[in-house]
Amino acid sequence: MRLSRYFLPVLKETPAEAQIVSHRLMLRAGMIKQASAGIYSWLPLGYKVLRNIEQIVHEEQIRAGHIPMLMPTLQSADLWRESGRYDDYGQEMLRITDRHGRDMLYGPTNEELITDIFRSHVGSYKDLPLTLYHIQWKFRDEIRPRFGVMRGREFLMKDGYNFDLTKEDALHAYNRHLVSYLRTYERMGLQAIPMRADSGPIGGDDTHEFLVLAETGESEVFYDSQITDLKFGDRAIDYDSVEQCQAVLEEFTSRYARTDETHDEAEFAKVPEERRRTARGIEVGQIFYFGTKYSDAMGATVADAEGNKVPVHMGSHGIGVSRLLGAIIEASHDDNGIIWPEGVTPFHCGIVNLKQGDDEADAACDALYNSLTAIGLEPLYDDRSERAGAKFATMDLIGLPWRITVGPRGLKNGVVELTSRRTGESEELPPEQAIARIAAIYGKATA
Amino acid sequence: MRLSRYFLPVLKETPAEAQIVSHRLMLRAGMIKQASAGIYSWLPLGYKVLRNIEQIVHEEQIRAGHIPMLMPTLQSADLWRESGRYDDYGQEMLRITDRHGRDMLYGPTNEELITDIFRSHVGSYKDLPLTLYHIQWKFRDEIRPRFGVMRGREFLMKDGYNFDLTKEDALHAYNRHLVSYLRTYERMGLQAIPMRADSGPIGGDDTHEFLVLAETGESEVFYDSQITDLKFGDRAIDYDSVEQCQAVLEEFTSRYARTDETHDEAEFAKVPEERRRTARGIEVGQIFYFGTKYSDAMGATVADAEGNKVPVHMGSHGIGVSRLLGAIIEASHDDNGIIWPEGVTPFHCGIVNLKQGDDEADAACDALYNSLTAIGLEPLYDDRSERAGAKFATMDLIGLPWRITVGPRGLKNGVVELTSRRTGESEELPPEQAIARIAAIYGKATA
Repeated sequence: MRLSRYFLPVLKETPAEAQIVSHRLMLRAGMIKQASAGIYSWLPLGYKVLRNIEQIVHEEQIRAGHIPMLMPTLQSADLWRESGRYDDYGQEMLRITDRHGRDMLYGPTNEELITDIFRSHVGSYKDLPLTLYHIQWKFRDEIRPRFGVMRGREFLMKDGYNFDLTKEDALHAYNRHLVSYLRTYERMGLQAIPMRADSGPIGGDDTHEFLVLAETGESEVFYDSQITDLKFGDRAIDYDSVEQCQAVLEEFTSRYARTDETHDEAEFAKVPEERRRTARGIEVGQIFYFGTKYSDAMGATVADAEGNKVPVHMGSHGIGVSRLLGAIIEASHDDNGIIWPEGVTPFHCGIVNLKQGDDEADAACDALYNSLTAIGLEPLYDDRSERAGAKFATMDLIGLPWRITVGPRGLKNGVVELTSRRTGESEELPPEQAIARIAAIYGKATA
Repeated sequence: MRLSRYFLPVLKETPAEAQIVSHRLMLRAGMIKQASAGIYSWLPLGYKVLRNIEQIVHEEQIRAGHIPMLMPTLQSADLWRESGRYDDYGQEMLRITDRHGRDMLYGPTNEELITDIFRSHVGSYKDLPLTLYHIQWKFRDEIRPRFGVMRGREFLMKDGYNFDLTKEDALHAYNRHLVSYLRTYERMGLQAIPMRADSGPIGGDDTHEFLVLAETGESEVFYDSQITDLKFGDRAIDYDSVEQCQAVLEEFTSRYARTDETHDEAEFAKVPEERRRTARGIEVGQIFYFGTKYSDAMGATVADAEGNKVPVHMGSHGIGVSRLLGAIIEASHDDNGIIWPEGVTPFHCGIVNLKQGDDEADAACDALYNSLTAIGLEPLYDDRSERAGAKFATMDLIGLPWRITVGPRGLKNGVVELTSRRTGESEELPPEQAIARIAAIYGKATA
């Protein structure tokens, strides 16, 4: 993309309404614009990151054997009356009346709707196990929306639902989700720690939240420092293997890690003192096994091998897709702006032309642009007639992980400059080597 | 995908509520399920086609130089009061009150919101031309929703908005949209004819609807038969060229083609009698130039080269993304089910194992499946223990354009059967040749 043809309305001033750094940077980098309280338009740059995050979530869910679909945003109140949640939910549920006076709502979550789909179409244990998920906009009418996309009212979420014959099968689905979430967050450059969460009326250990450590996190967290050494990495995993998934769960949840909601001082005291840590965290996902709560209430049964009708065991598993943009920025920025991890960056690299209008510099930039595009990369080429300082400031603000700077002086020596946004380190090298380096970083083959 | 692990709830019975063939087939093929009146869940098969259509729309919009972004579903009533449409819109607008008593609405379209974004961020003619688009769910509270996704209440639409300094520039944007739409529909296997539409209070020729011919279409259409011979094909086009885009507009709109709304008997009579056609059509898109209607009302101005503030010239351009599934099926089906065009098919081909459990047949199917997957194709492998007739019926119903049938008898002679869904013609050939044929159809290189 050439910046002269793009829509990137960066702001010079820091917007007064933004209290946390991710909100400030998303506004300043021209990623979002508030449409009304807690509701945002995703400007082109923000939308690109949102799509990248969505794509990673899709790929990892499909890898785990979960099936994508899509439920609508508006739901009938009737289903929520069946489950008993219509009255329980309170004012965060946005209630709507249509022209015929029917009670509807903007879905804050989808247990009822998916259970209705299941009971309408599945009748036998032979069709299990089954996990369906979707990525769809939700609405929660927060009394005080704030922190930009971190606590918005209209937000994008991946929510998945497993249906299993037995509790054991459902717990395998739970573990499968835990594994797929670890992979998902790591691909986004995040360390998200599974922490035992408040299981409420269900009881048991069967819910975990995933928290990203960040100073501005809304929760206080307590953990054994050994946990931050764990990486899922690129190990192979067979999602059908109960043992393998269980082993990952044990590895990642056996050390102490809890939020203030479930924190237990006595348990924490058993962690050797030098490994005890307190910090703040941002919740970016949660997995939940809730047994037959909805299948009982809504009559979602299957015939088992003996022909008996039994309620299915279910769980629901969520990733806060739009919120993740805020979480990634909270975890990865500096005074000059955002620092995108390679996995989610809106453009793979920036190209800065120091002397727009100079034939040689223009030609070198065009050649770089075309070569990068030809190998499947998407550069953002700042081809505006601006001074170098302004171009660098924009690139730093919007946070592309790599920048290639092209100027007449370097070109005389046959070199361009390759700069890492994260370290600030620069290196002079011939254009073809810069291309090869960027290609290698993103796993692309050069011709 | 192996069918035994998929969620494809096909129905044997034809649902009574469905009046038109696309609605019937989408329900029977397990593509959608009604959630409430005019609101549908997209089951996995339907969701895949929806995503394919969305992807084609994105690719063609980006090719034309238009920039993707995303606006929210809920909007504040205030902006609509500014444009004067809040009171005009009537009962089709779903009006919502939030917990603080603020008036909101579920967006039926986005002229106000995009104009607000534009006026907040763009101030100079140097930032023009600019065309922004998004693909987002909309809501129109139809009094009598029917025909499945063809006239639903919650529907997915691509809507794009151009901002230009002059009327001439805006008409070029109009032409660019016309060209990109022709390409878009052709890639989906559709012939969509641009027809002069009712321009209402704006006047002039500056709106066209795109109609797909189908017996069940909601509009009566009148056209010169020469128009159905026109193909855009794979001709190269420079979207920046005013002349090239104008020439395409002239080529595709100079012959008589109108809906009942704009039909003119006297003009139609000038078409040679043997070329006059009447038929029915489904509207799948519309392009519109409306000048400064919204920029005047909402103060969206830029400074021109002389420093004068002038209102921008705008247009809006829509494609009915979810409705297209219905339109494609109306235009492409037979008594046995759907016939997907290759461009949008949910799976590239089906594999039918005639003798599940037979070692040789199972191994041959696995090998086919793996080979097709390895070259980037997605087969649907019916690995259930069903009789052949049931497997064929399912494949015909869900409409995959190609089917490979594998059975012990063929394998003895080293062959499988390749069948075209459209023609019904079958051919026996060695598995590797079947793979090469499918690869060639979808433009994939074999190893």
